[in-house]
Formats: sequence, structure tokens, C-alpha cells
Amino acid sequence: MTQALDIQHTLTKKIKPDEDKLGFGIHFTDHMFILDYTADKGWHQPRIIPYQPIVLDPAAKVFHYGQTVFEGLKAYKTEDGRILLFRPEQNLQRLNRSNERLSIPYLDEELALDALKQLIVVDQDWIPSKAGTSLYIRPFIIATEALLGVAPSTRYQFMIIMSPVGPYYSEGVNPVKIFVESQYVRAVNGGVGEAKTAGNYAAGLKAQEGATDKGYSQVLWLDGVHRKYIEEVGSMNVFFKINGTVHTPALNGSILDGITRKSIIQLLKHWNIPVVERTISIEELYEHHAKGELEEAFGTGTAAVISPIGELNWQDQKISLNGGQTGELSTKLYQTLTGIQNGILPDPFNWMVEATAISSHS
Amino acid sequence: MTQALDIQHTLTKKIKPDEDKLGFGIHFTDHMFILDYTADKGWHQPRIIPYQPIVLDPAAKVFHYGQTVFEGLKAYKTEDGRILLFRPEQNLQRLNRSNERLSIPYLDEELALDALKQLIVVDQDWIPSKAGTSLYIRPFIIATEALLGVAPSTRYQFMIIMSPVGPYYSEGVNPVKIFVESQYVRAVNGGVGEAKTAGNYAAGLKAQEGATDKGYSQVLWLDGVHRKYIEEVGSMNVFFKINGTVHTPALNGSILDGITRKSIIQLLKHWNIPVVERTISIEELYEHHAKGELEEAFGTGTAAVISPIGELNWQDQKISLNGGQTGELSTKLYQTLTGIQNGILPDPFNWMVEATAISSHS
Repeated sequence: MTQALDIQHTLTKKIKPDEDKLGFGIHFTDHMFILDYTADKGWHQPRIIPYQPIVLDPAAKVFHYGQTVFEGLKAYKTEDGRILLFRPEQNLQRLNRSNERLSIPYLDEELALDALKQLIVVDQDWIPSKAGTSLYIRPFIIATEALLGVAPSTRYQFMIIMSPVGPYYSEGVNPVKIFVESQYVRAVNGGVGEAKTAGNYAAGLKAQEGATDKGYSQVLWLDGVHRKYIEEVGSMNVFFKINGTVHTPALNGSILDGITRKSIIQLLKHWNIPVVERTISIEELYEHHAKGELEEAFGTGTAAVISPIGELNWQDQKISLNGGQTGELSTKLYQTLTGIQNGILPDPFNWMVEATAISSHS
Repeated sequence: MTQALDIQHTLTKKIKPDEDKLGFGIHFTDHMFILDYTADKGWHQPRIIPYQPIVLDPAAKVFHYGQTVFEGLKAYKTEDGRILLFRPEQNLQRLNRSNERLSIPYLDEELALDALKQLIVVDQDWIPSKAGTSLYIRPFIIATEALLGVAPSTRYQFMIIMSPVGPYYSEGVNPVKIFVESQYVRAVNGGVGEAKTAGNYAAGLKAQEGATDKGYSQVLWLDGVHRKYIEEVGSMNVFFKINGTVHTPALNGSILDGITRKSIIQLLKHWNIPVVERTISIEELYEHHAKGELEEAFGTGTAAVISPIGELNWQDQKISLNGGQTGELSTKLYQTLTGIQNGILPDPFNWMVEATAISSHS
């Protein structure tokens, strides 16, 4: 880090929530990280401060033109007290790819990673230790210039906030029912679908509400051009085990390049389970199911890690997957990934990064 | 208005900017309007307060999931001192259509219009009087719940801020050069393109930057499915005069239902100039130009009113429109619309609404 990190400790620590009732993204730690950007100074003044409100002019561009990107990753505390991060460099690389798409200036990834580690160390008492819990970390950038013109901002803030979270499923990994969305579209090639930016999530709310009303957990998104190729499930990537081979939609510009996604592909290859990234139509998927070849389906993401799919509903045609039960491969992937993340299993790919090793500049 | 509007006047009025150097969306008036929403109380506590920063939790959903909508309209001061608004009820109706798409609760349009009028009256000294100037009004709603879950917020704020603005073109209405965008896509049917929401504007920044770098003012957006049908120009609707008939892309779900657009269609019909809303391909447009049939082209929006197009560049094929000059129809539309808006010309459609008539409840 070329700029000294200033740390201002809170004088009034919050009471920590019950580890059995954490939920997701509800409670926040005692501190946060902030870094400012101005056109003349570039990114400057890295600082850890007590968790506090953001104060912005009502004309700040983030409110009007949505120029913002974010990331999500998790830290874990091992049984021997080490703090582990899952592939944080991947998140920061993707943050910069999102920055590029949203015309936000490049952020020094080493500076950001050091800041992230330092923030975790400051708030390490907040990392829950109960099985299935973790510390969810949310780095994000917002455009702060107070100007109502549609053009990239000249001012930004990069922030990191952190939330102790419970298991995504209160009772382990349970299959969810998924509604295949035919009316609404999440993203299209040439748009911002592969960037982790707020507008993609806003665009999905209406379909999600409709699915919930019909008794489904999430929607399966189809592509915006042909309305037949599978893209994502809710805000997760999606995988299908068909005749012993695992298939997942290829990255095409409108699909998020998920870090859990790429880790699962790596694990499957390591296990010599065939895995292919390709275009998959919903018709084809239903045909495989009709032939008894669709063995398992699951979503993947940082929050849930693995989310098995028990039922699909496409235009009122309902199909049950693996008898509505969590499949063998889904279980193995969940246990392996979370085992590596928690430091219980060996880490053959050196994915985990310790948060105790802070650079000498900090 | 069923709820009493509280007005807290500022104690320190700002110095007003020079009317010759207003720019657009740079300066803001002394006051702003705020209305809160919570799931239990609904929209409540309407108040006019001194213009001041917004204070939000860093986990507020607007920063992460982009759940936000906005509007833009203008107020004018007539020579005899009346304050006129251009079709404000249309903006509030569209705000609610955007709300519907973004899963934001319905806002009482009468309450909002009364608040808007009252705010303008409070800050009426800020309405510039020089030719071509106006008071730009920005109503917007942001999701304020501090929760990192992808679901509609349970808390919102509706706000109105106002900015005295100069003419969009410092030297009258001048034709601009437009780059036809082939790589990036603004919106797609099934997405949020017809809603006035932040993510649509974030999605357009990269293409806009590219056009600017190549010496063009704006991009012409093509549809996201076929990549050949004309949608919008920059953040404006677009019209073409071909062989005496005016053509504009039909509203298809990915195009904004512009209030200037619909007013121009109404004016053209009033003048017995044929106007059609239909699907228009870029190839067809170039064919008409080759035959000498493409007479004029112009963008329409609240900010610029009419923005004539002098040149198009589609895949390095450059065509000049009307010799790069502002066309006769563009000029007539600009003069008529701005004349009506400023109260100089008769208002045959009763578009203008006076801001002095505040409801008795306020």
C-alpha cells in the first residue's frame, strides 16, 4: 500500500448478535473501510473508521444514474484461530472488470486486499465460529459527484462493510423450487449482465416477487435474445448433471463470472468428473429430464455456496429433480467447498488466504 | 394531500448563480422535499426542508441493488410572473409506472404534485428568467433499508430537488453528430428499459464515453435482440422525417415513454403532419437517406426539448442529414414547444399547469 492506512477505532462497541440468529446482511461490524477518489488526486486517504452513515448530496450520481459496483466474499475463523478468506484476489479482479464496464476508475487491487485484511483483523471478534456461519464482506464503490448530467462521475467512494452471517439454509442444504421466467429478462449481451452492478439486481426484483407469490424460491433466467437459453438462477450461476457430465452455461457477456462457479469447475476437473461450459436451452433440459438423464441441478454463489434445485416450473410444466432430494454431487461439492473454506479440509488449489498477514505499509 | 405538509425554511439562503452560466444540474435551490415510506406507515411525513445531505446506512439497498426511480421536468417563469409546469401529471404517472416495474410502492400523485408546486413556490426566486433558462425539477425515490438481501426494500424516501438550468445548447438549437452503437446495448424487451431507473443510465455510460472519444455527442441505441432496430438517442427519444412523414420507434417495452415524445406526436397530428410509431431499422434509414428521402432527424427530451441530428455514423458509414443544418420542422417544433412552455404561445392542449394554485390542505 503506497498510502498510509489510518485507523480510527470505535469508542462504543456494539453488542454482538446471537450466532444462532444471524440471518444474512442484517448485522454489521464495528468498523468500515473508506477510500476516496477525485479526478485530481486519484484514489486517496484510505481509512478504517467506526461503522457510520454515509453522507451524500441528494444530487450524488449514485442515486440518479446508478454508477456503482460491488463484490461479496466471506471470511472464516478456523478451529485453531486463523482467519481465512476465500479467493479474495478473484473478487478484486472482478471488481475492476465491473469498474471498466461502468466507467469507474481502476482500483489498486493490492491496496484493496490489504485494507480488507486489516479491516477483518480490526473486527476479528465479529467472525462467528458456529458451523455454517461466516463473516460476509461487501466491498462497493459509489459515484458521489453532485451533478445531474449523464456522464461518468468525477468523484467516488470505495467502501468495505462486513456482516456476520448464518448458514443460507437454517437446516443444511435443502433443495429449492425454481420458476423459469418467461416474461422478464435480467440482462442481454452488450448490456451490463456480467458486471456486478446494482442495476442488474434492481432489474430482477419484479420477477423474484412473482416467483415468491407463486410459491417458488427463485427464478431461472433465460437469455434476452432468444428467450430460451439458460443464464442464471436468482443471483447465482447454475449447473446441471446430465448423464454423468456436469453442464453450466458458458460465459457469454450477460452471465456473471462467478467465483464459486469457477471453483466448482476446477474441483470437478480435479475429480475427473466431466464438466462443460456451453449454451443450454430450457427445451433441451426438459428433454433430458423426460429421458431420465437429468440427474441433479444446483445454483452456486458466495451466499449459499451450493443451492440444490428440487423442482423446475417452465410454462406450467413442473419437473422434479432427483426426487426433490439433494443429490450426491451437490452434497459432495457443498461439503468440500465449505470444508476448504472453513480450513477443515486440505486446500489443494491454495484458494484460502490468511487475513493475519498484513503488509508492512499498513 | 391527506397529510399536513411541514415547511422548514432555511436560515441561510445561498447566493444565486449567474443566469448566463447556469449549466445543467450543477446548482441547487435552497430547499428540497422529502416523504418517507415504511412498511407499517406507508408514505408519511411530507416536509420541505433546507437543501441538505442525505444520511444513509452504508448497507442501504439503493447503493447495492439499485432500487431507485426518478423523473425530470421543468418549471418556467412567464413574463407576467406566473410559474408554469409542463405536464407534471404525466411525470408522476410515469414515476408510478417505474415504481411498479422496480417493486417500489405506489405514490399518491396528487400529494406529490401538491408538494412539487409548494416547493417551487417556496423557491420561486430560483426560477431563472433569461431566454432558454428554466428550473429543472428532479423527483426521485431511493430504497433506504439497511439490509444486504436481494429483495424489495421495506423503506424508501421520495425526494424532490431543483436546479436552475441554462439552455441545453449555449447557442440555440444546433445539430449534433451521433454514433450508431453496435457493441453495447442499453436495454432489452423484458428488462427495465421503459422505466426511468438509474441502472439504465449506468448501462449507457461506456458507450457514451466511446462516442465522445470518437468526436460524437451521443450514441444511437439499437435494439438488444436483433441489433438493428432504432430505439433511442443518448437518453432521448428519436424522430425521423422521411418523405414528409414523421417516423418514431414504437414503444416496445425497452424504450422510454417520453413526455416530450408524446407531446410532439400530438403537435404533429394537430398540424396535420403525418406521424407514425413503428419499428424502424437502421438499414432502412440509410436506404431512405441514399434515396434522398431522409429529410430531418432529431432527439427529444426534457433537457434539450429538440436536439437536431446533423450526422450519423453507422459502422463507419457517415451520412449528413439536411446538410448538417437544423431542419425546418425541428426549428418549428422547438419554437412551438418552448413557446408554449414559456407561456409566450397559446397552449391549445392545456399542457401547462400553474404552480401558484396550491391545494387547501398544504
